[in-house]
Amino acid sequence: MLSRLFANATEAHAHCDLYCGVYDPAQAKIEALSCLKTIQKYHDSDDEHFKTRAIMVKEQRAEEVKHHLMVLWADFFTPDHFAQFPNLHQMFWDAIHGAGDVKKSLDAAPAEKLLEQIDAIADVFWQTEKAKGMGVYPPS
Amino acid sequence: MLSRLFANATEAHAHCDLYCGVYDPAQAKIEALSCLKTIQKYHDSDDEHFKTRAIMVKEQRAEEVKHHLMVLWADFFTPDHFAQFPNLHQMFWDAIHGAGDVKKSLDAAPAEKLLEQIDAIADVFWQTEKAKGMGVYPPS
Amino acid sequence: MLSRLFANATEAHAHCDLYCGVYDPAQAKIEALSCLKTIQKYHDSDDEHFKTRAIMVKEQRAEEVKHHLMVLWADFFTPDHFAQFPNLHQMFWDAIHGAGDVKKSLDAAPAEKLLEQIDAIADVFWQTEKAKGMGVYPPS
Amino acid sequence: MLSRLFANATEAHAHCDLYCGVYDPAQAKIEALSCLKTIQKYHDSDDEHFKTRAIMVKEQRAEEVKHHLMVLWADFFTPDHFAQFPNLHQMFWDAIHGAGDVKKSLDAAPAEKLLEQIDAIADVFWQTEKAKGMGVYPPS
Amino acid sequence: MLSRLFANATEAHAHCDLYCGVYDPAQAKIEALSCLKTIQKYHDSDDEHFKTRAIMVKEQRAEEVKHHLMVLWADFFTPDHFAQFPNLHQMFWDAIHGAGDVKKSLDAAPAEKLLEQIDAIADVFWQTEKAKGMGVYPPS
Amino acid sequence: MLSRLFANATEAHAHCDLYCGVYDPAQAKIEALSCLKTIQKYHDSDDEHFKTRAIMVKEQRAEEVKHHLMVLWADFFTPDHFAQFPNLHQMFWDAIHGAGDVKKSLDAAPAEKLLEQIDAIADVFWQTEKAKGMGVYPPS
Ligand code: NI
Ligand code: NI
Ligand code: NI
Ligand code: NI
Ligand code: NI
Ligand code: NI
Repeated sequence: MLSRLFANATEAHAHCDLYCGVYDPAQAKIEALSCLKTIQKYHDSDDEHFKTRAIMVKEQRAEEVKHHLMVLWADFFTPDHFAQFPNLHQMFWDAIHGAGDVKKSLDAAPAEKLLEQIDAIADVFWQTEKAKGMGVYPPS
Repeated sequence: MLSRLFANATEAHAHCDLYCGVYDPAQAKIEALSCLKTIQKYHDSDDEHFKTRAIMVKEQRAEEVKHHLMVLWADFFTPDHFAQFPNLHQMFWDAIHGAGDVKKSLDAAPAEKLLEQIDAIADVFWQTEKAKGMGVYPPS
Repeated sequence: MLSRLFANATEAHAHCDLYCGVYDPAQAKIEALSCLKTIQKYHDSDDEHFKTRAIMVKEQRAEEVKHHLMVLWADFFTPDHFAQFPNLHQMFWDAIHGAGDVKKSLDAAPAEKLLEQIDAIADVFWQTEKAKGMGVYPPS
Repeated sequence: MLSRLFANATEAHAHCDLYCGVYDPAQAKIEALSCLKTIQKYHDSDDEHFKTRAIMVKEQRAEEVKHHLMVLWADFFTPDHFAQFPNLHQMFWDAIHGAGDVKKSLDAAPAEKLLEQIDAIADVFWQTEKAKGMGVYPPS
Repeated sequence: MLSRLFANATEAHAHCDLYCGVYDPAQAKIEALSCLKTIQKYHDSDDEHFKTRAIMVKEQRAEEVKHHLMVLWADFFTPDHFAQFPNLHQMFWDAIHGAGDVKKSLDAAPAEKLLEQIDAIADVFWQTEKAKGMGVYPPS
Repeated sequence: MLSRLFANATEAHAHCDLYCGVYDPAQAKIEALSCLKTIQKYHDSDDEHFKTRAIMVKEQRAEEVKHHLMVLWADFFTPDHFAQFPNLHQMFWDAIHGAGDVKKSLDAAPAEKLLEQIDAIADVFWQTEKAKGMGVYPPS
């Protein structure tokens, strides 16, 4: 299975700034889903202790989203990609800023929007040749 | 798309100890793949600076693997699951201990073994009903 | 004093995954005691600011408990120990999962139970030969 | 002194995603200077232990640079600023990616370039009205 | 510009324990200002979600203050400095303990006092010869 | 057992800045012992990979020592204690600075000295009434 995963791995810059050659928008998406679910459960609960914890967890998960997105933006995508997708800087700014909005709100809407923004970034990610060698969970 | 993802989400304990209801072995796997690639690149390089950095990165990525596996073990899986899969405790101990072996070695073998161990855990994960509502990247 | 501490230190796997050879259940216990005291003080207070901070502190301290227990489980104890103490996997799962329960509750009971679970693990720890060379705070 | 600092503080989004209203490129700059000095000292030393530590320290300091820059980019600057300074997205990408280059190299050049990039961002920062109320170390 | 900054850099112990030779009280001050502003905004708000987040942010920022002060105290200042400024130990204890008081309170007073304490430490810092080569934001 | 531990717990400031009321020099000591053992194993090894990891581990463990000591100094000890033990500020400065020396050296001597410094602090700690209610591992 490993041989399949890495068969066409080309030279790459990696999420750890080493060039490890492994990237996937899945990391940001899982944390963003956690934010959304946390918000939903916040509203379903009337337990103050749970609600306070939900706010804490949302803050941490949204920070993780920001980090994983910054890695994709600054390490995976290259000047060639930004030339090919001229809106890509803005897409990342919107999403990383949007993760801040998720921290600031208890509405589901910013978290749902964040997931759409991450999905849109993932679409670009999987259009690149580079992702074919370095991504782990391609769309089925 | 969100509605599909969460349509059959049942009550669940979550990776953040809130019960956020989002889990996926993808998190451990991505970090373990990073370990393996890092080891391969270590051997392909003759730059001492790169090699020192590779050891540092491997240490951090393997620690992330341990954390993500502990979360699956202690938070996602329930007593019912351990009754159904009597070897599951041992599978997790092997994998978490195996992540320590990846720290301790520059051979590819422990990292390849770790990936197999995570895949085996993912197989169990996706056999559970609970994963159907809470997992994000089911096998295609 | 150091010579006494390390006189009978045998080859060992260590809490830092180096094999540093220093382990002690004291680390988990101190954090778990902090959880319990925090819960008690939460109930003694009627200051909302204090109570919110107590929930945050409890979350962090309980996460520290989980980490220190995982290290003991995966790094200190060996296959021989698990053969000798067949319930040891379950004891660790109960305690690490129990630290999650401490996060989820404001009752003293889960924190008291966690302390008992850590004490039971410490009993096993100090029965091993390995602990005699690597532990720091043996029972008096 | 505080009254002077905050006299003209306007509504603002803050480095902690709260809107705390305190930002300064000084945070990124101090860490980037640490990277440069570390590289210089690496070359002045012939002690292997020191050199290994220098690589570790450089890795951590450069990661701090990335974090502080991301905060300025996503939290301080607003759509109006990006309209006014159309190159600002690119300036941030260059600098954050450049901090990755500092990790990857032992040459002083990438670290010197990073400092210039941060200074250029600071120039833009201090041209904004928002910085007058929220910045702490204005150029003298 | 760099040549100016480092022209008279002498041998120095650095904030990263490497001797990187870069220090500045600015790091502690920026975080302390964030605490003060957070407290002010806490009182200006009647949004429970915002107020809970403000408590969390204050806790984190005050911890950062403590860390940056400890670095100045233990790494920058030397026995000669403590002989020259006999009250310096007490000034640091007051400030680091004071950062704990900021965690414990929602009043502005402890945060304002903390800023004064940091300014007093900065005054001593900039009186030293060592700071002339290692500081980044001297008083104008 | 808990009742014994907390029977004479008086009002106290705690290691988490909450006033949780749990402190023990054991936390610093365990990490310092890890530093010493790591140094010893560094010299016993001729494996470059192991030696690089040992330097990394030493750096992290010594940083933990610094943190745990800062907590004791700033949170546990009160002005009354500093009046009673006039050398206590200096003892803490020596130990925290000494933990930096452990980072900077591969000799056992600084690590052995650090352990002695921590033991001396522990002696003072256990002489206080406050420690009787809040300490966990009193000298036997
Ligand atoms: Ni990577
Ligand atoms: Ni979760
Ligand atoms: Ni260890
Ligand atoms: Ni802020
Ligand atoms: Ni430094
Ligand atoms: Ni505490």
